[in-house]
Parts: sequence; C-alpha cells; structure tokens
Amino acid sequence: MHKSRLGSFIIDCKSQDLDEAARFWGQALGYEVKRHPGDDRYAELKTASGEPTMEVQIVNHDSRIHLDIETDDIAAEVSRLEKLGAKRIEDFPRWVVMEAPTGQRFCVVNPQRADFEENAKTWKA
Amino acid sequence: MHKSRLGSFIIDCKSQDLDEAARFWGQALGYEVKRHPGDDRYAELKTASGEPTMEVQIVNHDSRIHLDIETDDIAAEVSRLEKLGAKRIEDFPRWVVMEAPTGQRFCVVNPQRADFEENAKTWKA
Repeated sequence: MHKSRLGSFIIDCKSQDLDEAARFWGQALGYEVKRHPGDDRYAELKTASGEPTMEVQIVNHDSRIHLDIETDDIAAEVSRLEKLGAKRIEDFPRWVVMEAPTGQRFCVVNPQRADFEENAKTWKA
Repeated sequence: MHKSRLGSFIIDCKSQDLDEAARFWGQALGYEVKRHPGDDRYAELKTASGEPTMEVQIVNHDSRIHLDIETDDIAAEVSRLEKLGAKRIEDFPRWVVMEAPTGQRFCVVNPQRADFEENAKTWKA
C-alpha cells in the first residue's frame, strides 16, 4: 500500500527574471512570495492552508503550468500511473517526469503538503 | 473595492474523448469525476474542501493546464491585472482570457469556490 495526491502546481516561466515572474504571480493571486537564499530557479507562493503548494520556476522550455503528484512511494506511484496510461519520461534523483495520455507533463515527487499523511489517498496496488 | 483569488485549475485536453480524459485525471489525482448531462466539453474533478476547483476541458489548442482567477468584479480585476503587466486577450460573456507577462494564458471568472466571500483577498483599487 502507498499514498498519493495532488501536491503542487508549478508555474514554469521561460527565460524570465525569477523576481519579476514571482512578483507578478504573487500579486495576481494574492500570495506572499518566499525566496530561498541562493536559489535563482524556484520561488514559493505561500498558498492558504489546505490548498496545494505553488512555486514559480525558471525553465528553458516554453512557459506553462504543470502539476506534481506527491507520494510516499515514488516507484509504486509511477507504476500505478503507468497502468492508467501515463508514460515515464525522465528520472531525476528525487522525482520522475511523466506524461499523461492527454499530453500534459507532470512530476511524481515526495510529500509537499503538511497534511499529506492525514489526507492523501491510499492505493492498494 | 473588489475581491479575487485563485479559483480553479483547468486541465485542457486537445482532441480527446472527455470520458477517457476525465477518467485518467480523476484516477491519477484520486478525485471523483462529475459529468454534467449534455455537457461534452467539461467534466468536474471533485477536489477537497479548501482546494481550488478543477475541471477537465476538451479544447482545440494544444493540451495544457491553465488557471482561473475568481472575482466578484471582472472589470475591476482585469484592470488590476493589466496594471501588473497582464494583457487582455479575449472577452467572453462570462469571462475574460488574459496572458501573464510570463506567457501563460489564464481566465478571470465569477466566484467558483464556496468560501469565496470569506477567504478571497480584498483589493482597494
């Protein structure tokens, strides 16, 4: 048995200044922006309790929004998603990039939200 | 004064069967799918209380994910977002399509979440 659920939405921004990109999205959505010292790639948007976490990310591909599925067992969750029709695209040390049968890329990651244990869905296979 | 906040995430799927597309995303994220009789374009994913609402939508453009900002005053919210650098792309009877300075399209719509009045952000201009 393992658990998973929707963890985060990542706003991927091509060739943008991270401060400018995060400032726009923070003000547009009404979230405080949290920068992590030394990190020029990710800025956190402080979403409300109960909401998925959100980050603004600087990327090389075209701008888009992607979602992350959080799980306590990445291998088991990737296998579950493959059975649903998703394709494994690329493995990183701490996450796996997949593609939905409907074409969107998404990532499978470790737990991101504070209430993961309490509220994530349990899968038996 | 008007209010707004993040309202929804819409999973736009190109040239897909709505039932198949909604089934994948419902099972991937662990949400029940709700179809509305006669509606072959939108299917609702029943997200948890406190989370943004989510829908799977059949579209003609490439597959992507976009977000909606919910507001009690669409004209005032569009004006606020224009001042932040967003561009107005197209007006529909009940929503406006905009583009962020970072390139993502998003929509400004009427309130979608049950706790909008209580938890949306109030803007003074």
